[in-house]
Amino acid sequence: MLTAGSWGTVFAKVLGDAGARVTLVARDPEIADAINARHVNPRYLANVRLPDLVRATVRPEQALPGADLVVLAVPSHALRACLTDWAPLVGSQAVYVSLMKGIEAGSSRRMSEVIAQTAGVGPERIAVVSGPNLAREIAAEHPAATVIASASTSTAHAVQAACWTPYLRPYTNGDVVGCELGGAVKNVIALAAGMLEGMGFGTNSQASLITRGLAETTRLGAALGAEPMTFAGLAGLGDLVATCGSPLSRNRTFGEKLGRGMTLDQVLAQQHQVAEGVRSCRPLLALAERLGVSMPITRQVERVLYEGLPPLEAVKDLMSREPGPEYRTP
Amino acid sequence: MLTAGSWGTVFAKVLGDAGARVTLVARDPEIADAINARHVNPRYLANVRLPDLVRATVRPEQALPGADLVVLAVPSHALRACLTDWAPLVGSQAVYVSLMKGIEAGSSRRMSEVIAQTAGVGPERIAVVSGPNLAREIAAEHPAATVIASASTSTAHAVQAACWTPYLRPYTNGDVVGCELGGAVKNVIALAAGMLEGMGFGTNSQASLITRGLAETTRLGAALGAEPMTFAGLAGLGDLVATCGSPLSRNRTFGEKLGRGMTLDQVLAQQHQVAEGVRSCRPLLALAERLGVSMPITRQVERVLYEGLPPLEAVKDLMSREPGPEYRTP
Repeated sequence: MLTAGSWGTVFAKVLGDAGARVTLVARDPEIADAINARHVNPRYLANVRLPDLVRATVRPEQALPGADLVVLAVPSHALRACLTDWAPLVGSQAVYVSLMKGIEAGSSRRMSEVIAQTAGVGPERIAVVSGPNLAREIAAEHPAATVIASASTSTAHAVQAACWTPYLRPYTNGDVVGCELGGAVKNVIALAAGMLEGMGFGTNSQASLITRGLAETTRLGAALGAEPMTFAGLAGLGDLVATCGSPLSRNRTFGEKLGRGMTLDQVLAQQHQVAEGVRSCRPLLALAERLGVSMPITRQVERVLYEGLPPLEAVKDLMSREPGPEYRTP
Repeated sequence: MLTAGSWGTVFAKVLGDAGARVTLVARDPEIADAINARHVNPRYLANVRLPDLVRATVRPEQALPGADLVVLAVPSHALRACLTDWAPLVGSQAVYVSLMKGIEAGSSRRMSEVIAQTAGVGPERIAVVSGPNLAREIAAEHPAATVIASASTSTAHAVQAACWTPYLRPYTNGDVVGCELGGAVKNVIALAAGMLEGMGFGTNSQASLITRGLAETTRLGAALGAEPMTFAGLAGLGDLVATCGSPLSRNRTFGEKLGRGMTLDQVLAQQHQVAEGVRSCRPLLALAERLGVSMPITRQVERVLYEGLPPLEAVKDLMSREPGPEYRTP
């Protein structure tokens, strides 16, 4: 289980509550000590008691050999470097589980592709967890559902069994591409949702954005071989609704500042963390362009972020396109 | 254009802003007079100025003969009786446009079915408008999108052209069944969303409910011959997100009171209007049962409404079902 960020820590709680022994790999020895001594991660969710089955270490070599599941929850741009170091320590039967939602800059690769490439494992040893899973709410055991995607049904079932608790209901899905894309594009759409919020628009506008944002996500997914129904599910729609609707979402908050008239540089100067959607926007557009897929909302977000377009102009642009049929049947 | 309720009045503004001459049929002469003299509907949206092209009357015989579009916006349980009176006044080429979202008690019929039957017109003369369209926000000209559904492409295009304005973007869709069902079931799911809110649950729970609620709506729709993609669109997902997310939604507010522990009778005693979802819940379940479709959320809402089940028990019940695949591919 790597590493002890917010969602990683909460997922360790889920696994522990479901009965698994979990070793968290933390970078900071103070965090590892606190988890072992007091069963809390003092940096994230200091009020949440972790199950006794959750331990922590700063040494990957203590956690990785012998682990059945290697759960990865590092920032998406750090995955390749981390995994290059860690993969040699992992057993030959272990399943890699990605909690990450992003797309690699430059290569436009999804996280499971980076895992396959870097760790040299086949699709049957990779699973992805994605869904409407704001860490703080799962920690509070509010009822939620999630998706376990893997090309291998038995791998999906193994991960499903490992994280089924009374407060988290995991569904399986064979469509890894769709689940990962849903998670990546929603961060860009959440930037746009924040902009609408910042401009003072209401529920209809948000709902229209979510729906049309999902439509362009689905188009991109279909071009990459994903199953359109996945985008109507928890890792598509569900995650999108949660991220666009929650004031806890970093991407939405970031977009809200843009909507109030701040420039990208001004927002970046205020927040020390870059929102994942800012990072993913261009790699996603590159992918879309390569495949000939139109993503008008993502494109307008890029224009606001990088070309200084006022968000209100972006809205006018989107609204004034010739209206057509809602979708085209093949 | 019938009648001068909240959404009907706002849709008259939309049509007027798009350049059509509109005659609203109001029941109350005071309202008709106010619209003609001061261009406002004093009961709903007294602050919104209606376009000069919008006039009002209390006499259907002044509005109906010669109208190209007969827009219907009466309460769903009143449609059959109203239309029986009005249909003989309507010209033989006129298109009926339904703004209504409900399902008839007893017959479990959709509104367009009631129109076809009562007015004796074919599907090429019927269109349905549905989407994330909270009246108050459209009145404020916040950007939104909607769907015009008709079995006839040229009818859909005619209605689309009649209501395209800079603040409302109408898409066409050939799937009348899907658009109407989306609008009817979402009221039931919004009751459940309100209950979650009333119990203090957060964004993940809401997003999971919306996603799984849409899944059961889609299952029912597919059994009735609807196009699954419609439910991922504005009249499915879009309307559902808007209704579940907005504090302006009557169904959500109703559910919130149930979630705080009030009984159906207690809530009904407090509100003089029945929420549409309370009315639609059982006709929808009857339809689902006839078709062998499982609708676990709708069923739990029925149990809370009519069998006194505490909402928290309903949640536990839904969460403890054996988790399976997210969807089954045919």
